[in-house]
Amino acid sequence: MTEQIVEQNVAAEVQGITDRARRASRRMAGANRAWKDKGLRAIAKALLENQERILAANALDLAAGRENGTSKPMLDRLALTGPRIQDLADALENLATLPDPVGNVVRGQTLPNGLRMRQVNVPMGVVAAIYEARPNVTVDIAGLALKSGNAVVLRGGTAAANTNKALLDILRDALDRVGLPADAVQSVDQFGRAGANLIMKARGAVDVLIPRGGRELIQTVVNNSSVPVIETGEGNVHIFIDASAAEEMSVDILLNAKTQRPSVCNTVETLLVHKDATVLPAVLSALAKAGVRLHVDERVQAVLPAGITAEPATDEDWATEYMDLDLAVKMVDTMDEAVKHIRTWSTGHTEAILTNDLANAEKFVAVVDSAAVIVNASTRFTDGGELGLGAEVGISTQKLHARGPMGLTELTTTKWIVQGEGQVRS
Amino acid sequence: MTEQIVEQNVAAEVQGITDRARRASRRMAGANRAWKDKGLRAIAKALLENQERILAANALDLAAGRENGTSKPMLDRLALTGPRIQDLADALENLATLPDPVGNVVRGQTLPNGLRMRQVNVPMGVVAAIYEARPNVTVDIAGLALKSGNAVVLRGGTAAANTNKALLDILRDALDRVGLPADAVQSVDQFGRAGANLIMKARGAVDVLIPRGGRELIQTVVNNSSVPVIETGEGNVHIFIDASAAEEMSVDILLNAKTQRPSVCNTVETLLVHKDATVLPAVLSALAKAGVRLHVDERVQAVLPAGITAEPATDEDWATEYMDLDLAVKMVDTMDEAVKHIRTWSTGHTEAILTNDLANAEKFVAVVDSAAVIVNASTRFTDGGELGLGAEVGISTQKLHARGPMGLTELTTTKWIVQGEGQVRS
Repeated sequence: MTEQIVEQNVAAEVQGITDRARRASRRMAGANRAWKDKGLRAIAKALLENQERILAANALDLAAGRENGTSKPMLDRLALTGPRIQDLADALENLATLPDPVGNVVRGQTLPNGLRMRQVNVPMGVVAAIYEARPNVTVDIAGLALKSGNAVVLRGGTAAANTNKALLDILRDALDRVGLPADAVQSVDQFGRAGANLIMKARGAVDVLIPRGGRELIQTVVNNSSVPVIETGEGNVHIFIDASAAEEMSVDILLNAKTQRPSVCNTVETLLVHKDATVLPAVLSALAKAGVRLHVDERVQAVLPAGITAEPATDEDWATEYMDLDLAVKMVDTMDEAVKHIRTWSTGHTEAILTNDLANAEKFVAVVDSAAVIVNASTRFTDGGELGLGAEVGISTQKLHARGPMGLTELTTTKWIVQGEGQVRS
Repeated sequence: MTEQIVEQNVAAEVQGITDRARRASRRMAGANRAWKDKGLRAIAKALLENQERILAANALDLAAGRENGTSKPMLDRLALTGPRIQDLADALENLATLPDPVGNVVRGQTLPNGLRMRQVNVPMGVVAAIYEARPNVTVDIAGLALKSGNAVVLRGGTAAANTNKALLDILRDALDRVGLPADAVQSVDQFGRAGANLIMKARGAVDVLIPRGGRELIQTVVNNSSVPVIETGEGNVHIFIDASAAEEMSVDILLNAKTQRPSVCNTVETLLVHKDATVLPAVLSALAKAGVRLHVDERVQAVLPAGITAEPATDEDWATEYMDLDLAVKMVDTMDEAVKHIRTWSTGHTEAILTNDLANAEKFVAVVDSAAVIVNASTRFTDGGELGLGAEVGISTQKLHARGPMGLTELTTTKWIVQGEGQVRS
């Protein structure tokens, strides 16, 4: 076959997949909460029962990864274990306990002409996800999409192909067993990169596309998709310590925001400190003692407590999401200077102010244009679970549709329902 | 200069425009409702005071259009008149009476750990619009964007360049006079198509892009933008007359939905009728009497009332948004067949069922996946004004962010504000 014919065949096959997803999405939209929860619990049970099969498939991917010289952190993300499979099953059980976003009435009223109008949450339809070699995302995204009444088309990393194939088969069997459509969970992994490219261009066939992974993956999807995308993840997070911030609170929050789980997106990456803040030495000492590597500007270098060492900070430090035990530190003359720094370098995820000055707290909240703005608490609270959303789909750093932590509702759209008895427009 | 240098210069100039828009957007976000309303009223006044200047600029565009052989309907859209300028001013005055979407609390609670969390509507930031040669859109979109606290970057059609330039100058002067930033309203018209292309790729610099115009324009924007787009407009609208529909209501609704204003997107384009519906002859007679040209399938052809003529309908009729006094008519054996037809041909804007059967009404509402689903009323009600939203930004036919009629709130995003007194995550 010529290359062109191969391409046409792949396009036809992917269209077949999205067509089946559309049909399955209609059945999912019609399934009530009890039925969907039954499906989630069936998947949880099947994952535990098929643990050996999953681990065997995962062992193949891990062996191939080691052979290809995959880095250790990448191998760690790729690896499934008994406890990790248990976590996936537990997350599905938890999802089954959450309220159904579908059918929620957003607003409604009877209009002057007697028409009854209401705007109701309904499933998106076909959700697609493109992600890197983290097989837990396969189960995670499928569970969230099913609970919100959608069908899902997945494209996982090639490095996790065997694991994802095993998971997909188990998920589809479990759905089928409870009478839900197996085609509500499908994959285009068999078509490699071509499958991802076709999904990105499938506007109309795919209702929303969620990329999950590193910066490069997300930017590729954002720049190449005609399907609407929800951008998630990148967090170059700042904390500003104002002149009036209390010492104990500042130390506690910085330690929590930097060291509790450094590899996640809501961890602090740059500390901005007012020149009159007396708490700086205590904060830097505590961070250094906790093993944090400091990258500081000249003014901070000049006031480092005895025995503490630090690297000089460059623009690259202001731009970097370390996701590790590193922190950039800069001294500013005013809050305006801190805000200006944030405007230049922030990814719009989360910024916090530590202060006892009411006017400054209010101004910071008003002028900082990020998904989450926090006063006197850890940046680690920017999280769907912590903020009471139940499950978390991701943290959106874009402004359209969803911003900040996304729950199940963000995987739905709305429908306007208007009921009358013959009204016409005059 | 080489072509490459010219391109680089244009890119730099457009970046200058979006940078100024970003700065202006911060000032707009900080302006309270009274101040923004003052700006809207100042613009309304300035439009009326500068009527002669606007009409003179418009005359230049109209003359050029006539010389280029522009069609009559296109010239009509391009034309401004005294009454049309009055309408624009009135719309701005009306906008000034509407509540401010900014600051509205979407949800809020005190979490178990004492954190106070609230999700609040805030302006998008920089809104861009790409539209065809309808200079009224310049004023309309600018007014909506300003009221919701945004800055706007406009790209109107080249055919309206003189008119848009005059309007832009008047808008900017008026803003400046009340102390609002003139750069909250800017245009990239001077760069022609290159300006539009740069705006479509300005992800991060532009927060949302709204195309307004025909199918081709909207598809070009959707397929070429990396900036998030809200797709508006196309309405291939269906009405299904069920077997149990009452005659008088069916006649009234069809006449209203087809003839009250045929050129708009919520007008009906295809009538699907159940084979047992006895109301068909009365409906067809009334439509024909009102001057509607019928395009019918064979089964409808066979039952046409005496004296009524009709063209045979083809797939093209099912696909067409006539926006004129034309209606496609098809007979179906079941409601399922009607739903299937809708799934094949609808653009997902509005569909209605006329019925006295409760189960059918509920099923139609549940399974038809359109922005608006109407029972026993005219499709013409899919309209922001009619549904109580005040101003209407457009009618979204996509599922992300906004679906159906969009009001001012749809030009905002949200910010999560979290306030504590030292809370850290455990």
